[in-house]
Amino acid sequence: MNKELAHRVEIIAVGSELLTPHYQDTNSLYLTARLNDIGWTVSFKTIVGDDVRDLSSRVRQALRSTELVMISGGLGPTGDDVTREAVARALGRDLILQRDLLEQIRERFRRRRRVMPKANRRQAFVIRGAAVLPNPNGTAPGQLIRAGGKRIFLLPGPPHELKTICEASVWPELERERRRYLSRSVLKVTGLTESMVEDLISGLYPRTSDLGLTVLASPGQVEVHLLAASPAGQARARAELRRFQSRLLGRLKDYVFSAHGESLEQVVGALLREKKMTLAAAESCSGGLISHRLTNVPGSSDYFLEGVIAYSNAAKVGLLAVPREFIETHGAVSHQVGRAMALGVRKRARADIGLAVTGIAGPTGGTAEKPVGLVFTALSSAGVTEVEENLFLGTREQIKFQSAQKALDMVRRHLLSRAGARKRRSS
Amino acid sequence: MNKELAHRVEIIAVGSELLTPHYQDTNSLYLTARLNDIGWTVSFKTIVGDDVRDLSSRVRQALRSTELVMISGGLGPTGDDVTREAVARALGRDLILQRDLLEQIRERFRRRRRVMPKANRRQAFVIRGAAVLPNPNGTAPGQLIRAGGKRIFLLPGPPHELKTICEASVWPELERERRRYLSRSVLKVTGLTESMVEDLISGLYPRTSDLGLTVLASPGQVEVHLLAASPAGQARARAELRRFQSRLLGRLKDYVFSAHGESLEQVVGALLREKKMTLAAAESCSGGLISHRLTNVPGSSDYFLEGVIAYSNAAKVGLLAVPREFIETHGAVSHQVGRAMALGVRKRARADIGLAVTGIAGPTGGTAEKPVGLVFTALSSAGVTEVEENLFLGTREQIKFQSAQKALDMVRRHLLSRAGARKRRSS
Repeated sequence: MNKELAHRVEIIAVGSELLTPHYQDTNSLYLTARLNDIGWTVSFKTIVGDDVRDLSSRVRQALRSTELVMISGGLGPTGDDVTREAVARALGRDLILQRDLLEQIRERFRRRRRVMPKANRRQAFVIRGAAVLPNPNGTAPGQLIRAGGKRIFLLPGPPHELKTICEASVWPELERERRRYLSRSVLKVTGLTESMVEDLISGLYPRTSDLGLTVLASPGQVEVHLLAASPAGQARARAELRRFQSRLLGRLKDYVFSAHGESLEQVVGALLREKKMTLAAAESCSGGLISHRLTNVPGSSDYFLEGVIAYSNAAKVGLLAVPREFIETHGAVSHQVGRAMALGVRKRARADIGLAVTGIAGPTGGTAEKPVGLVFTALSSAGVTEVEENLFLGTREQIKFQSAQKALDMVRRHLLSRAGARKRRSS
Repeated sequence: MNKELAHRVEIIAVGSELLTPHYQDTNSLYLTARLNDIGWTVSFKTIVGDDVRDLSSRVRQALRSTELVMISGGLGPTGDDVTREAVARALGRDLILQRDLLEQIRERFRRRRRVMPKANRRQAFVIRGAAVLPNPNGTAPGQLIRAGGKRIFLLPGPPHELKTICEASVWPELERERRRYLSRSVLKVTGLTESMVEDLISGLYPRTSDLGLTVLASPGQVEVHLLAASPAGQARARAELRRFQSRLLGRLKDYVFSAHGESLEQVVGALLREKKMTLAAAESCSGGLISHRLTNVPGSSDYFLEGVIAYSNAAKVGLLAVPREFIETHGAVSHQVGRAMALGVRKRARADIGLAVTGIAGPTGGTAEKPVGLVFTALSSAGVTEVEENLFLGTREQIKFQSAQKALDMVRRHLLSRAGARKRRSS
C-alpha cells in the first residue's frame, strides 16, 4: 500500500441533497475511471453538504492526505452554493471578481434574450491565482488552483457540464504528466455462474499491478473486467491487454458473448442483420422482456418482426396454434408447449427464427414437480428445433431476466453454429 | 445551518472496491433514511480504502466534526480488513481477544461441519470498552464504542448483515434518545412535467423544519416526497403528514397515481383485479415494455391475457386486423392505426380493455411531419375508444418508457372514471 501522497486523489462532492436517502453521487464514478486511466489512485471520496465551514475543513484535510483534490458541485448562483468561498477560506486566499467572466455570463443570458439575474454575479468570482476552465454548457466555469505543490479542481455538479470541462481542460492538463497508459476491456459472459467463471479462470489472476482482473456477477450475466497498464505507451498497454484477454478467452470460450461493451440483445441483433435473418418471439413467463430488450436496439425493426405475450392458455392456442391437448396433457409449462410455441410464432410471423419461453416466474404458482424458476426456452428454425429446460433462482424479475437472457443466447449460439457449419462446408 | 456537533453523523464506508468505477456504497442510503427518521442529520459521507493509516486519520477527523460515527465494512477475516485496528489506533485503545466471541465463531463453523480457518480469529478481537453487537448472519459482530461523549458503531459491509444488526441493536439504542418522530410518504405523479408540478404546488413549500418537501423528476414520472416531524410522538407526526399530504393532493388531484409506494403497473393491476376486468396490449414502438411491466407484478396472469408486439406492418394487419388501407393512407404511426390496434387486440384476446401504442422511438425514422417522439396511445373498451397524440422527448429508451407510462395511465383513468360513473349512478 502506497503511504505517500503522490498520485493520490480525493474526490469531494458538495450538495446537501447528496446526504439524503434519495441521491447518489455518480460524477465520482466517471472521474475515477478517467483518473485511473492516466495513473492516479482515488484514495478518498467525501460528500459534504452546502456548508462553508464543513467544506473548508474537509478541503484542508484532503490537502493533507492527497496530491490532487477534485471538488464537484456548489458552483451555482444561489446562497447555497458555497464551494468558492469554502475553498478560498481553506487556502486563506481572496475571491476576486473577474470582469471578463462576468461579461461572458451576461452575454450568455443576452443571447437568450434575458437579463442576467443579480445572483449570477457570484459565479464571476474566482479564487486568487486560479485558472478559469471554460464551461460551454453552463454559467459556472471550473477553476484550477495550485497551492504548495498540490492542485485543486473546482467543477460544476451537473454531469454534462462536469464532463465537458474535464474533457476540454482537466484531462489534457493531467495527461501531460501521464505516468502510465491503460487499456481496458470487459468480457461479458452468460451461461456460467460466478463460481464457474472463477473456477475456469483460476490461475490467471495477475500477480503484478500492471494487469487487473475483476469479476462482477448478477443473475444471468457475469462480467470480467480486464486492465493492462504500461509506462511505455498506449500501444504497449493495448498489446498487453490483448495477450491477457486471449488467455481468458481461451478459458471462457464461447460463453463470452461480447468483448466491446455490447449487450446480448445488440449482439443478437448484429448477427441477425449480418445473416439477413428475421426473428419472432413468443413469451409466457418472460412477459415481454425479450421483445422489450430487442426493441431497445435502434434499427431492430429490420429483423424483429413481432412478439406475442401468450400469458393465457387461450392465447397460446389462438395466437400460436399450440395444440390444446399438449396443454391438457403436459401443462402449459412443458417441453412440448415450449417447442410448439416456438414453431407457432415462427410460422405465424413467417420469420426465420421463432423463439419461445414458458415457465413459472413466481413467487407463487410452483409445485413440487414444477417449482418456481422452472423455465423452458425453445428455438425453432427451418430444420432445427431446440428446447432447453432451466431452473433459475431469484426473484420474479430475476427469473424473467434469466429466461430472456437464456433465450437470446440460444439465438446467438444458433446463428454462430450456422456460420461455423457454413464455413466448414465452404472450406 | 447548524454549526454544532450535536445530532450530526458521519457515515464512513470502508473498502478499496468502493473507490473503483464499479461499485457504489448503498448502505449509507439505508442508514441515512433510518437516522433521519429518529432525528439525526448526516453531515458527511466518506469512503476510505483498506488502509489503516487512511482510515484512522478519517475516524479522528469524523470525531472532531460529528457526535456519532457509523463505519461499515472492513470487519472480515483477511488482512485487508483493517477497521478494528484503524479505529483502535484512532482512539489510542487496545484490541482485546474476546474468548467467548472466539468460541461463538468456532461454533458457527462447527455447525456447518467445518473447522474455523485461523484467519477468522481476527474477528474475535474487540476494541477495549466496546459493546459487542451480535451478528446472526455472519461471523463479524458489530461493535459500539463510547469515547468522550461520542459514539462509534462498527458494522459489517454486507447489506443483509448490516441491516440485521441495525434493526436488532443500533436503532433500539438510538431510539431511546429519540428527539423527534417522523412520518413520510411519496406521491407519484404522471401526466405532468416537473415544472408543471412545481407551479401547482408553489406556495406549499414548507417554511419550517418540521415539514419536508422534495420533488424528484424523471421522464414520465415525478415523485413528490413528503415528510412531517414532531417531537410529540409518532401519531402526531402521522397526523401532520396527513394534513400536509391532503393540501398537496388538493393541488395535484388525480395526476397522483400512488401515495403508498406502488408502481403504475401495480395500481393498474389492482384496479383491474378489483373490477374483475381483463386487459390485452398491442405494442409497436413501446416494444413489449407495457407487457413486461404488467407481468412484473405477481399474479398478473389473472387479468393480463396477452400482448402483441406488432413491429412489422404485416403483424399489425395479420395479428390485429388493422385494415391495410389505414396503414397505406395514414401511415403506421397514426391516430387511425392506433385506434384499430386497440380494437383489434381487444377482440382478438376477448379482453375487456385493449391498449395500443404506435409511434417513433428513434433515434432515426423521424420526419418533419412525424418527428421522433410522436406516439399515439389508444384504449378500446366496450362502447369507448380513446386515442391520444403525444410528443415525447428523450432517448429511445426514455420514449419507450413514456409511451408505456401514458398508455398505462389511460387504463388507470378509464377504470377510475368507470368507478365514478357507477358511483354516481348508484347514489
